[in-house]
Amino acid sequence: MENNITSSFKFELIHQSSKSKARVGRIHTPHGVIDTPSFVAVGTNATLKALDSHTADELGLQLMFCNTYHLMVQPGTELIKQAGGLHKFLNRKNPIITDSGGFQVFSLAQGDVKDELKSRSNKKHEGSVLKINEDGVLFRSYRDGNKILLTPETSIQAQKDLGADIIIPFDELPPYTISPRKLKASLDRTHRWEKRSLDEHKKNVNNQALYAVVHGGVDKQLRKESCEYLSTLDFDGFSIGGSLGKNHQELFELIDYVVPMLPYDKPNHLLGIGDLNSIEQCVTGGIDTMDCSHPTRAARHGALFTHEGELKLLNSRYKYDFSPIDPTCECTTCKNYSRAYIHHLFKAKEITALTLATHHNLHHMIQRMQRLRELILMDKI
Amino acid sequence: MENNITSSFKFELIHQSSKSKARVGRIHTPHGVIDTPSFVAVGTNATLKALDSHTADELGLQLMFCNTYHLMVQPGTELIKQAGGLHKFLNRKNPIITDSGGFQVFSLAQGDVKDELKSRSNKKHEGSVLKINEDGVLFRSYRDGNKILLTPETSIQAQKDLGADIIIPFDELPPYTISPRKLKASLDRTHRWEKRSLDEHKKNVNNQALYAVVHGGVDKQLRKESCEYLSTLDFDGFSIGGSLGKNHQELFELIDYVVPMLPYDKPNHLLGIGDLNSIEQCVTGGIDTMDCSHPTRAARHGALFTHEGELKLLNSRYKYDFSPIDPTCECTTCKNYSRAYIHHLFKAKEITALTLATHHNLHHMIQRMQRLRELILMDKI
Repeated sequence: MENNITSSFKFELIHQSSKSKARVGRIHTPHGVIDTPSFVAVGTNATLKALDSHTADELGLQLMFCNTYHLMVQPGTELIKQAGGLHKFLNRKNPIITDSGGFQVFSLAQGDVKDELKSRSNKKHEGSVLKINEDGVLFRSYRDGNKILLTPETSIQAQKDLGADIIIPFDELPPYTISPRKLKASLDRTHRWEKRSLDEHKKNVNNQALYAVVHGGVDKQLRKESCEYLSTLDFDGFSIGGSLGKNHQELFELIDYVVPMLPYDKPNHLLGIGDLNSIEQCVTGGIDTMDCSHPTRAARHGALFTHEGELKLLNSRYKYDFSPIDPTCECTTCKNYSRAYIHHLFKAKEITALTLATHHNLHHMIQRMQRLRELILMDKI
Repeated sequence: MENNITSSFKFELIHQSSKSKARVGRIHTPHGVIDTPSFVAVGTNATLKALDSHTADELGLQLMFCNTYHLMVQPGTELIKQAGGLHKFLNRKNPIITDSGGFQVFSLAQGDVKDELKSRSNKKHEGSVLKINEDGVLFRSYRDGNKILLTPETSIQAQKDLGADIIIPFDELPPYTISPRKLKASLDRTHRWEKRSLDEHKKNVNNQALYAVVHGGVDKQLRKESCEYLSTLDFDGFSIGGSLGKNHQELFELIDYVVPMLPYDKPNHLLGIGDLNSIEQCVTGGIDTMDCSHPTRAARHGALFTHEGELKLLNSRYKYDFSPIDPTCECTTCKNYSRAYIHHLFKAKEITALTLATHHNLHHMIQRMQRLRELILMDKI
């Protein structure tokens, strides 16, 4: 089960559960191995929020997600190229995945319309989409007002500058409420853009793997069409993007439907999902990697992960609770500090609270994925 | 040169410079040694800002300053007592010093008058001083509106609950602009309060050392009177408080004048001073320890310490500077990250910037004090 399209990238299937579509694998990249299924933490601006790269490496975070759109705007992908690429810039030893910028630029466009209706706000340098056509998207940087053109080619070039191990083709993000005709038109354009992205990528593979993005929203026929078309192209892996449904039920149905249509010998990635309540079902649905900002954001809001669910640390019941967040946890936060202390740090609005909580939640996610891999290897899930 | 008033507290003089009043010593406390002269970082709310205790211990920060006033208000000293004291609460291995709360409560009173004149603001739960008399100060907690009585006795009791290695008697902070008659009256009351604090402390020494606070503002006669009176009492050390002058010149003159009047065989502490430009002159003036929030606050504002002074990291000249903050520095920040990267983190408003910068500045201060001790031992300063 190997895939040698690029020199260092390889997906190795270790075990297929007999009980579900869950599988254990290893993705080999130029910056080391990702044991799958794996949780992918989000470090939008080339850092996790409240945790430095060195610590993330030490925690054993095997894959980190950075956002090309944000990095184009600040500090600029040219600068990161000069630094020797993202890994050198942020001093990360383990693999990185970047997205195309498409998601953010279209969220911005959709958010913009909403803002316009609500308040007609017109802040100086407010990010805004100036033009969308077959070529791509022209938008204005929210930081300095400069115009930035995002096309399949410029997105791939930006991701070449960044130099992540896994990159994503430029796609269109249609709104959740869209007519079937428009969704089909959007899908067709996304497919054309993904093909152009692949062609651009092939000019200079640069030891990077390119994952397709399957689209089609919650329309099964379009999802099938997307899987079929993209499978004919020479992608290294497949991610699932676009609208994933309005609730967990729709999400799980979608995964159950889509995953079997993806090439079995290539890794897949679920874009933007990874909250505590979804993980196991995504994994049993056959997902290899999934990124989500929820665990780190929840931490900063005082929601600490335990095996019994989220512990809402700001609740006054923890004021006098001198036990660790999770007595079974081996992380630095749990080995050194009590619920009462971190509760106090949150109440006193101390930055240290955010770091300690983030450290714990990330450790929890890494351990939880490790446990899921063990259960798959034993055919228990 | 020993002082055995309390069982574990001892000041050991190692070397007196032949070139200045600078001296190298060791303060032995129940939580280990403080090599003097030493910089004391401020962790107001039982944490340094943006750095956890475990990391501060690892960095070798030998003494940390916590504020009794803030801890009385949040989470309450009773809670910290239940936790087993400050060291257990924040999991600090090294020594801690707490103040009496007097400085904050009087700053609040003076701030309050100013606010009243300016805006007559009357926010709910805004902290305010309700009554000041011979007994002490009654104020309202800014957090929950509860009334809190701070007297020499309650301040010492609160500091017993906290259990720091070094504690401070309750004193009055007169404003910088005060008539000579009022300053004298304030000094007399401070002396009465310090005596009451000492008496309260003696009822239960609790393995803590009590440092007097020398007052008298910039009035030399009153400073002399304060040194003379407080030296007759059984304090373990002497701190210099009150108004220390309106500029560095006045500060250094004051130190030159006051230090020789303090008992030579006891440690001294300079309250609230420790910025980069003052340290060496304070040390050659004979200061043993000094606390200051400047190094950690400067870090959070992008002012990074080097041997050439403060590097203003937000300056665009560092945008493409891929060298470390200080190429000679051995701290985790300098070993792992570039100026360009941390500049970017500040621009992107990432919390990680604050942690990395604080880590560096604190490491710098610790190394700088180490270097000063070496210079004193060689009689070079």
